[in-house]
Amino acid sequence: MILQHVVESQQFTVPMLVELFNLADGMERIVNRGGTGDYSNRILASLFYEHSTRTRFSFESAMLRLGGKILATEDANQFSSSTHGETLEDTVRVVANFSDIIVIRHNEVGGASRAAAVSSVPVINAGDGKGGEHPTQALLDLYTIHREIKTIDGVKIAMVGNLADGRTVRSLAYLLGKFERVKLYFIAPKALRMKQDITEYLQQYNVWFTEEEDLKKIVNEVDVVYMTRLEPDQRVGVEPRHFYIDEFIMKYLPHKSIVMHPLPRSNEISPSVDKDPRAAYFRQTRNGILVRMALLASMLDR
Amino acid sequence: MILQHVVESQQFTVPMLVELFNLADGMERIVNRGGTGDYSNRILASLFYEHSTRTRFSFESAMLRLGGKILATEDANQFSSSTHGETLEDTVRVVANFSDIIVIRHNEVGGASRAAAVSSVPVINAGDGKGGEHPTQALLDLYTIHREIKTIDGVKIAMVGNLADGRTVRSLAYLLGKFERVKLYFIAPKALRMKQDITEYLQQYNVWFTEEEDLKKIVNEVDVVYMTRLEPDQRVGVEPRHFYIDEFIMKYLPHKSIVMHPLPRSNEISPSVDKDPRAAYFRQTRNGILVRMALLASMLDR
Amino acid sequence: MILQHVVESQQFTVPMLVELFNLADGMERIVNRGGTGDYSNRILASLFYEHSTRTRFSFESAMLRLGGKILATEDANQFSSSTHGETLEDTVRVVANFSDIIVIRHNEVGGASRAAAVSSVPVINAGDGKGGEHPTQALLDLYTIHREIKTIDGVKIAMVGNLADGRTVRSLAYLLGKFERVKLYFIAPKALRMKQDITEYLQQYNVWFTEEEDLKKIVNEVDVVYMTRLEPDQRVGVEPRHFYIDEFIMKYLPHKSIVMHPLPRSNEISPSVDKDPRAAYFRQTRNGILVRMALLASMLDR
Repeated sequence: MILQHVVESQQFTVPMLVELFNLADGMERIVNRGGTGDYSNRILASLFYEHSTRTRFSFESAMLRLGGKILATEDANQFSSSTHGETLEDTVRVVANFSDIIVIRHNEVGGASRAAAVSSVPVINAGDGKGGEHPTQALLDLYTIHREIKTIDGVKIAMVGNLADGRTVRSLAYLLGKFERVKLYFIAPKALRMKQDITEYLQQYNVWFTEEEDLKKIVNEVDVVYMTRLEPDQRVGVEPRHFYIDEFIMKYLPHKSIVMHPLPRSNEISPSVDKDPRAAYFRQTRNGILVRMALLASMLDR
Repeated sequence: MILQHVVESQQFTVPMLVELFNLADGMERIVNRGGTGDYSNRILASLFYEHSTRTRFSFESAMLRLGGKILATEDANQFSSSTHGETLEDTVRVVANFSDIIVIRHNEVGGASRAAAVSSVPVINAGDGKGGEHPTQALLDLYTIHREIKTIDGVKIAMVGNLADGRTVRSLAYLLGKFERVKLYFIAPKALRMKQDITEYLQQYNVWFTEEEDLKKIVNEVDVVYMTRLEPDQRVGVEPRHFYIDEFIMKYLPHKSIVMHPLPRSNEISPSVDKDPRAAYFRQTRNGILVRMALLASMLDR
Repeated sequence: MILQHVVESQQFTVPMLVELFNLADGMERIVNRGGTGDYSNRILASLFYEHSTRTRFSFESAMLRLGGKILATEDANQFSSSTHGETLEDTVRVVANFSDIIVIRHNEVGGASRAAAVSSVPVINAGDGKGGEHPTQALLDLYTIHREIKTIDGVKIAMVGNLADGRTVRSLAYLLGKFERVKLYFIAPKALRMKQDITEYLQQYNVWFTEEEDLKKIVNEVDVVYMTRLEPDQRVGVEPRHFYIDEFIMKYLPHKSIVMHPLPRSNEISPSVDKDPRAAYFRQTRNGILVRMALLASMLDR
């Protein structure tokens, strides 16, 4: 797999995903055994222009689990403070001289691709801007399906909540569309339905999907329920229990199915669900380490 | 010694303390030799909801001295920012998937115990809330007495300053009460005397203590003078030199006795005392590394 | 070379610089091979009272490249917060117990030398105060000349821009004055000329220098063009193109000459210059790693 930079989820083909997920499966052994020695002198630089401790910790943990090292800043804005006004491009050129791979979280759409254009070391996009990309989140979601359901082809998945703005569900729907016989159930309030660019893309590639307004109607049919946050103001005029999961709805979910959530969650999952073995949302976090280890390793090996 | 989590100093029995301090004594050799290799792939996550660089550095240094690795945030509040509102419990569940042990500093009393209740990896309380616990500070204080005076049984200690609110002196008095023939001299302004919960506990267990209002009166009798901060507003209507130590008072302190302070200090110790070999307050800092190494090692070995 | 602390560039004699630069040349091999193992249990503490991610990353990367470890804070002010009011001296005494070497960035002139006075481990000044020292920047500038021009004796260098306040050009002029047959061309607006303390020092030691107001006049004569920032308010009443370099001026610069800049840059270098192999300003960053590795290694070996 040749990956110079990871900027957007569209870069990934099905064969690349398969290879990446196989690599990620093998990473479990490295976590347990403790590092490989192969990356013990490689440095990952975390260049975060916005706070996102969850994402930063996940990448840094993946690098440490590989046996590598870390340079971190929670406040990369200092590079381009009003006093100095350094361009993102110059900052990246400098940091590329300090490290072997850069993970960047930028506050503007396109930030990661600008960084990749000038960097002498690989760049991974860890989120750029509100409407931008966050490709490794989509990868870990897809990897969780691969790992828990054992197949992506043929998977039936309900996506629930704010589908209009949800970066994760949009990217995941896009990637799932590349697999065979996938069925997508979009469960959203009318104002927050999956947007036309994605539904047209799915139609174009003959991917089966349907739109509903109540999870309960279809929960017994799916392999995966992918919950997302509904912010308080998005619940106005909405029947929130249609986009909510608790122990009663779990009764209808098949035994081998799972519940996912990109986290942080708000009130859309009852805490009573947490102990159900089908609640996969914290395992998802752990899968993120494995898939990021696989990504880092293959980019550093390049 | 079986320690799943360290939440409060009350967890520790005398045999556990003896075992921990023996382990800490052996850590000096590991610091000099440089790591053991045994922890080279273990990750400590510093989850600090309040700034406390001193405490964070001490734990992180201990982990690095053991040969381990670190994930750090100085601003864990980002996890539960107003936008996202993630619960402490969810954050801890996530971070437990990134690390092998969590050191938490929380802004609310009970924060560490809530974290321990849901964490899949060991949790150490590095301070929770203004009136809360900070058990490793008490451990390093007690370890300093063990190391410098060679015994805790029979020790005579003056605690000086704000005893009413001082978390460190309260915990230390509590732990000392578990040892034999200890004598406690509480030297505080009237308004800042040791509180009744502690004095009643000492009476119940027949621990000798007395209360005075001037250090000078008893300085020639004690093995340890444990100084604490008096804030400027706490000096109003008080004779500050009664709770102060300088080279003149040091003349009355026995040769083998020591002066301790949890740091940071304010004006209660004259800088002229710093070069006196009995000034143990910076050595206390170094002892904190040893005792935290012992704690981390025994919790990771569990 | 015996270096206990590095506080100011005046500490360095020519033989020390030669030894340091030879050591730095050898560090390239360690970067490529990946660490030496000799420093694998040594801890560098970054104690930054001001944000300077660029400088902090450079020191931390150097320490990681050597195979060592890091304790970092981007906000050392927390140690001496208004609540606690700890002195810098006490903070340094404490941090010296957590680490093997301290890199300090302080907001007041003299901060680093106060730290060095009380520290039990080596201290490196990474900038203290607006008018203070930043000796390792001068070292990496000089090392870049050594590395790119192959000699410092006899070098002809134009220093361009704000020479009155520029810490880097002042220190570099000072250090260059210690070498043989050096020629300095100061190119600054009238109000920002090199100050008298430096020019008098150069006269005293018979170092050749001249002052001009337009880079173009002498660009064909020099080995090095050292550009510095002109802030917007410093361009008022000035002909900015006299202190500016672009592809047209590059035509007059000899083939084996180089362009340097301490970065961050503002508008004084056209982006069209970046791809010219004579543009050495990003290589300068990389040289900073090598020279800091050499410095750390020789101070830790002491």
